[in-house]
Amino acid sequence: MQGGARARLDGLLRARSIALVGATERSAWSNGAFANFGRLGYEGSIHVVNPKGGRIHGVNAATSCRALGQQVDAALLMVPMHAIEEALQDLHEAGIGNAVILSSGFAELGGDGADRQMSLAALARDKGIHLLGPNCLGFINFIDRVPIWTINLPTRLAGNVALVSQSGATASYIAEFAGRQGVGLSYIVSTGNEVDLNVARVVDYLVDDDATRVICLFLETSRDAQTLAAAAQRALSAGKPIIALKIGTSHITARSAQAHTGSLVGDDRVFDAACRQLGIIRVQSVDDLVATAGLLSQVQPRSGGVGVLAISGGICEVAADRAEAVGLQLAELSQPTRDALKQLLPDFGTPHNPLDVTGAAMLEPSLFASSIGVLASDPGVDLVACLYDMPGAPLQKYSEQVIAAVGTGFAAIDAQSVLLSITPRPVVDYSRLLAKHHGIAYVAAGVDRGLSAIASAQWWARKRGECHPLPVANDLPQIDARPATERQTLDYLASQGVPVIPARIATDAAQARSIAHEIGSPLALKIASPDIAHKSDVGGVQLNVSPAHAADAYRQIRVAVAASCPQARIDGVILSPMRGNGIELLVGIVRDPQWGPMLAVGLGGIWVELLKDTSLRLLPVTATDVRAMLDELRATRLLDGYRGGPRVDRNEVADVIARIGNAALALGPRLHSLEVNPLLATPGHVEALDGLTLWNDEDAP
Amino acid sequence: MQGGARARLDGLLRARSIALVGATERSAWSNGAFANFGRLGYEGSIHVVNPKGGRIHGVNAATSCRALGQQVDAALLMVPMHAIEEALQDLHEAGIGNAVILSSGFAELGGDGADRQMSLAALARDKGIHLLGPNCLGFINFIDRVPIWTINLPTRLAGNVALVSQSGATASYIAEFAGRQGVGLSYIVSTGNEVDLNVARVVDYLVDDDATRVICLFLETSRDAQTLAAAAQRALSAGKPIIALKIGTSHITARSAQAHTGSLVGDDRVFDAACRQLGIIRVQSVDDLVATAGLLSQVQPRSGGVGVLAISGGICEVAADRAEAVGLQLAELSQPTRDALKQLLPDFGTPHNPLDVTGAAMLEPSLFASSIGVLASDPGVDLVACLYDMPGAPLQKYSEQVIAAVGTGFAAIDAQSVLLSITPRPVVDYSRLLAKHHGIAYVAAGVDRGLSAIASAQWWARKRGECHPLPVANDLPQIDARPATERQTLDYLASQGVPVIPARIATDAAQARSIAHEIGSPLALKIASPDIAHKSDVGGVQLNVSPAHAADAYRQIRVAVAASCPQARIDGVILSPMRGNGIELLVGIVRDPQWGPMLAVGLGGIWVELLKDTSLRLLPVTATDVRAMLDELRATRLLDGYRGGPRVDRNEVADVIARIGNAALALGPRLHSLEVNPLLATPGHVEALDGLTLWNDEDAP
Repeated sequence: MQGGARARLDGLLRARSIALVGATERSAWSNGAFANFGRLGYEGSIHVVNPKGGRIHGVNAATSCRALGQQVDAALLMVPMHAIEEALQDLHEAGIGNAVILSSGFAELGGDGADRQMSLAALARDKGIHLLGPNCLGFINFIDRVPIWTINLPTRLAGNVALVSQSGATASYIAEFAGRQGVGLSYIVSTGNEVDLNVARVVDYLVDDDATRVICLFLETSRDAQTLAAAAQRALSAGKPIIALKIGTSHITARSAQAHTGSLVGDDRVFDAACRQLGIIRVQSVDDLVATAGLLSQVQPRSGGVGVLAISGGICEVAADRAEAVGLQLAELSQPTRDALKQLLPDFGTPHNPLDVTGAAMLEPSLFASSIGVLASDPGVDLVACLYDMPGAPLQKYSEQVIAAVGTGFAAIDAQSVLLSITPRPVVDYSRLLAKHHGIAYVAAGVDRGLSAIASAQWWARKRGECHPLPVANDLPQIDARPATERQTLDYLASQGVPVIPARIATDAAQARSIAHEIGSPLALKIASPDIAHKSDVGGVQLNVSPAHAADAYRQIRVAVAASCPQARIDGVILSPMRGNGIELLVGIVRDPQWGPMLAVGLGGIWVELLKDTSLRLLPVTATDVRAMLDELRATRLLDGYRGGPRVDRNEVADVIARIGNAALALGPRLHSLEVNPLLATPGHVEALDGLTLWNDEDAP
Repeated sequence: MQGGARARLDGLLRARSIALVGATERSAWSNGAFANFGRLGYEGSIHVVNPKGGRIHGVNAATSCRALGQQVDAALLMVPMHAIEEALQDLHEAGIGNAVILSSGFAELGGDGADRQMSLAALARDKGIHLLGPNCLGFINFIDRVPIWTINLPTRLAGNVALVSQSGATASYIAEFAGRQGVGLSYIVSTGNEVDLNVARVVDYLVDDDATRVICLFLETSRDAQTLAAAAQRALSAGKPIIALKIGTSHITARSAQAHTGSLVGDDRVFDAACRQLGIIRVQSVDDLVATAGLLSQVQPRSGGVGVLAISGGICEVAADRAEAVGLQLAELSQPTRDALKQLLPDFGTPHNPLDVTGAAMLEPSLFASSIGVLASDPGVDLVACLYDMPGAPLQKYSEQVIAAVGTGFAAIDAQSVLLSITPRPVVDYSRLLAKHHGIAYVAAGVDRGLSAIASAQWWARKRGECHPLPVANDLPQIDARPATERQTLDYLASQGVPVIPARIATDAAQARSIAHEIGSPLALKIASPDIAHKSDVGGVQLNVSPAHAADAYRQIRVAVAASCPQARIDGVILSPMRGNGIELLVGIVRDPQWGPMLAVGLGGIWVELLKDTSLRLLPVTATDVRAMLDELRATRLLDGYRGGPRVDRNEVADVIARIGNAALALGPRLHSLEVNPLLATPGHVEALDGLTLWNDEDAP
């Protein structure tokens, strides 16, 4: 993040003096905000502003910010919507550069509200005031104990997890739950309608924040996706995981989010693809958000296998099922490890992973320590997870012995380690201190959420290890071309190194006959027109035509098209050789309003149409990325010669698709979409057979 | 359940006198079991038996059960494996009819252990002793306060949820978690290796148990599936939900369960199909098991839509996403409901479902009550779920007001109602009593698990409403037939009303020519041999043959087959008309070792082979069941004329498949499998083109 932006956010999030503008003891918000200074132990100066003056919250109120006559870092505006403009003017004159706006009544209402929000944004820019909100609950800086927060403090447990949320109430629920699970926070920032500061910019700030190790997001929409993408890449390099819970997967949500904070909920699949590409861990519930944050706040993820142990065979089986369901890679134990475990365990024990330490550990808790040591010695084990419930009070002698043994085991190994509770439970002070005393990382989300969190951490570590940062699309050379029709699109792609099917255009039947004889048999003939997208629907296509019948086919096409589309401009008829048996792929590039150009790849026919079997990526992509996209397809086995079908060269296919992606990017930001359908892959060759380009402005075809 | 079996289980689960056999203060198990009588407040008589006599657990020990000289209902055997036989003899002589065997060292070890278990079973049968175990932890009857339980009591919260588990330690974890979530239990039964009593028989008992409203299962394998199926059908009729967590979905589990309790983990998909058909709610985690049990223990499920409300727009959106993800049907609000909500809410509120009651409810908690009333008045709403966290201590004045308002709202409506916590949290006594005070059903599993539980309840209520109990397979008439080859199978199916392709057999080329001319062109010719399953692999098939070429085709087939399979018995060559364009289905019946004959239906080709896109059911099925199976297929849209393909009559297809299922059942229990592949469906006709039957004994082909 650039220095200026950083300093301004510092001024807000570490404000040493704060004014409550519109303070009144009749408002729950005002009372809440004032009380929170005391609750959190704010050490800066607090000012109270109300046009009527008087004593408010036990403090002499100034009638305006100007009247304060002091340097103030930030103001909380609790004035009614219609008084906002005047309040900003006052802030401007008092030299206050940061404001948090609680007030609602803006874009979340649509219509007039959206207009009001645009005026607010313009005014703030004009006055040089940084805004958080409107329609937000404020923020809490737990590290420096700075709250500009208008409802109850949801937690006081400080830690290294930052929470940034477009919904303030949801942030509050998440933070409260985090506190109950022993997960301490560095910041909560509620960004509301994001007229100025937004989630992406706060994330960008937090990447450089020393107190923050994990960044949690609650999103209703992606705004400023380019900033978020850049920040996410910096976070991945810095080893700081971002975990995102984004609503909007359901039809109903897309509707109600509009009502809630004036967001337009984007295509969920696009966001999902962006997360996978940027190394953002996407979770589907508050429970998973907090469990994953809790794990990552304590454990440095590694990409290798996991060793699991428990004192119940049943729980080991539950864990094995869950690991498979969430894609967690359990380590395959080596023979020496298995031998060593056989030595440790009683006769009826079996040296599996997950490892049941058996009832023998009821009599001998140190079996936990020794088993942990053996598991961790396995070359395939990067993390040891012990499934056991941390006691919540000093009453359970056996459990305390187990915890001590687990602590001893964990301390003696190089692998990462974590204790997972078997069922979800709160982390009370006693549990937290006991874990700390024994140096144990503890996640109390239960086996189900806990293993899911470990799977996410493993995925993240692998993503980090890939270490090939996305090239920035804007750095690619732009080409001054504007293809539109099939032929223009294919010619343009050919100029960019994409193999395309040979084609020549005929404008009368005799020419068609002569070209056909040059190409040789059999042929495909297609109408060439900038006005016709679906050629076969209007009789504009003839397939498997022999050269002898080319002239007839030409005439039939012209007659059929003239009847169906009398107004269409006709360039002629394209003649190409027919291609043999191959696999048809669809390669589409579409500009997402938030994330920019996205690449979609799928197999043609039912696979795309019926099964929606496509893989998505932000552009640009490398051929290696496209290989991974092909692997993701459910139909992927068809590429390898399924049931006697053609087997194609995946590397060649990937290379051609990457070229198509680059060719689309080079057309610049006005490109709306470019589609190659089909891209035909045969055992010896990959070739674009048809293409179409659409542009984002009126004069496009 | 039959009276005799019921009385015997009563004798065990309600034992009024119990002997601890092999008691010793040096054993944690013995100490635990003895202490549990006191902890739970057992009111029956307790006897202690040890061959050495003396004072144990503060009681004078008898040297044998015989020596007790009293009527004893049940014994807990804690003797070593090798002393079990003598102990059972002692029980027999003392007239004790029920024993719980803690000891391990049986089938869970495989090999010798399995032999020992068979001997144990035979001995117990011989002596007329009912066994629970071996390798189990016992049981707890919370209603009558009878524990034969060898580790710590996991909970003391009595209630209406029974827990039956093949793993004792897992049962203990589940019960402890249930207690923490405020879910009270009627029984825990740990069945271990199930040499005698098994989960199915305990379920059968619990269906008639007045204290039990919900039955939870933790399963490692399905044993005695017929008993479980019958009990499940009785439970569904009785309105008593069964919720099952069955491990064994992963590869690793299948291996480690073997080690754990000697179970063979069956095909997970078969179990899944059985659950769906029998109305057993299947869950995938302990968390979901307890959340669903907690809901069903308090709420009578109905099949209609759900109305949801919360005080946070963000949480409403989380809820909407989750509802869609778990298939929970939210009610579509009627216009009068929306109008009434608009009246209630402030201007910036929107009358959606889930309903955000807005920040206005911060000032006016009664908005909860009025919103609940309006939602419940909607004709589409059968259940109202309010998302709000129950306070855990009497400190939060606003929260208490909300809870009171929710209680008022719930009390005034006819719809079912439940309060769901927003995040998972324990149910402390204060919360539980507060909920009780206000008459509120409360589930504290959080939105994610909570809505999942409601979705399960909704599914269960619909399943119950379908009200067509499975016919019992054994009641169907058996037919004395034994088809094997293609022709025999098709002829048999034809005799059972299944349309099959006409076919005639030729034994020389001249006959082939003459039959071919009678049938008319074109034809399919296939080798007829009981020894050849894959005809086309050996050159045994010729398609699209004109009558003029039938004699040649005949000769080619005979030559090719004679070369490939010189030893095969040849009945001749089958001639059939070629069929036109249609949809090929695969219809297979296979006997599952546990569940009996299962029907699998799928579309041919990639759908079955690559995508494993099949639907499964226990037989028998009705045509209506098969309609539902067809709807479940991912390829289902192909049946409706997708992309210009043939459109088939689903009712006719379903009817024919149901007939095939009945025909397979009628072949009796020695049938291993019967497959029709393909069943060809065309717009006007459905017809079996090929079939094969396999039998479960040596003399089958």
